[in-house]
Amino acid sequence: MHRTRVKVLEDVLDANGTIARANREDFDRHGVTVVNLMGSPGAGKTAVLESTVRGLGGLRVGVLEGDVQGSLDADRLASLHVPVTQINTDPSFGGECHLDANMVRSAIPSLPLHELDLLVIENVGNLVCPAEFAVGEDLRVMVSSVTEGEDKPIKYPLMFRATDLLLVSKIDLLPHLDFDLYRYLGNLDSVHPGVPRILVSARTGEGIDQWRDWLLEKAVREP
Amino acid sequence: MHRTRVKVLEDVLDANGTIARANREDFDRHGVTVVNLMGSPGAGKTAVLESTVRGLGGLRVGVLEGDVQGSLDADRLASLHVPVTQINTDPSFGGECHLDANMVRSAIPSLPLHELDLLVIENVGNLVCPAEFAVGEDLRVMVSSVTEGEDKPIKYPLMFRATDLLLVSKIDLLPHLDFDLYRYLGNLDSVHPGVPRILVSARTGEGIDQWRDWLLEKAVREP
Repeated sequence: MHRTRVKVLEDVLDANGTIARANREDFDRHGVTVVNLMGSPGAGKTAVLESTVRGLGGLRVGVLEGDVQGSLDADRLASLHVPVTQINTDPSFGGECHLDANMVRSAIPSLPLHELDLLVIENVGNLVCPAEFAVGEDLRVMVSSVTEGEDKPIKYPLMFRATDLLLVSKIDLLPHLDFDLYRYLGNLDSVHPGVPRILVSARTGEGIDQWRDWLLEKAVREP
Repeated sequence: MHRTRVKVLEDVLDANGTIARANREDFDRHGVTVVNLMGSPGAGKTAVLESTVRGLGGLRVGVLEGDVQGSLDADRLASLHVPVTQINTDPSFGGECHLDANMVRSAIPSLPLHELDLLVIENVGNLVCPAEFAVGEDLRVMVSSVTEGEDKPIKYPLMFRATDLLLVSKIDLLPHLDFDLYRYLGNLDSVHPGVPRILVSARTGEGIDQWRDWLLEKAVREP
């Protein structure tokens, strides 16, 4: 039983990988750098994006919004006058808890790739499955809020290991929490030693310049 | 393709429902009331439980801890001298993002059911899939932190609809957040009108008595 289940999962992830590579080729052909933005529900993924998409130099940014239902986040971002495309994960059975490569593939025709340098794919809020499903991204960025507790890197190690950059969010709340930042960073280093990290607050703007600089460096516009 | 996928999901949920009913019969036979405790990673599920399991009158409480990996939460609760059993969801591929009825079934032999009146099953931190998989519970309780934002009921409606009680957690942080409690409660009522709700803070103890009273009422010890 267990072996059958593992085999099914292997096949699913194999197929996902094949489609993710096709997505990546499409993005590469258009010179678009793609970031897969992941994190818990309420970690602040959209808030961090809102504070970012303006002021990215001459970089042309688009967003692909993954949500179980609705278009709240897409509406928030569209008001900033960036191209936003919405994906709702299958609405039957409550919806999927992650984006997969095929959902992103279906959205590609509605993305203005020839007008973009950077595409941010905001994944469904979830610390488990999004880390298992590549969607064709160049880079993975995880948003992890200090309100979630110091233990999260140890409890959800796969996502913390899979990320290329960690944004530690809502740091303006640190004075009001029983949160030991050094213990958290120690836990982080125990599962992903030395992973780049930026402490940010979308509310106060702290760290946002540094996060913008990281994006600008990664998504250098092709000459 | 889509129809095949839906059929597979239906079969999975059908099988899960059958096993959940078997679990429920076992719990009923022992007179154990079972609560499935759900919420985001870091919503405060374990903290709320810690503040609860002591002082539940003469009620004998046990905990079944669902985690992707590790036993951090189980260790926290075991220090309170309640029986705690750990389930780690399949560690291959990063683990499952929810408990299912079969995982709980496998744990039943190691649960001291004859010594319990109330069993709390702490699910994996996730706002999507746990709501789709019954595990044999009598009641579903959801913990939703005010740090997660007012939009969560609308973005993850299935879980908010599935719950019998909502614990709105971390309310000691309200003065430090841009969080409109009335807007949040309005969103909640738009997806699950009138669902019972208790505002709690595990840190200050606010609302914890009311939550304990709710549990005591639901898990009346059989004479």
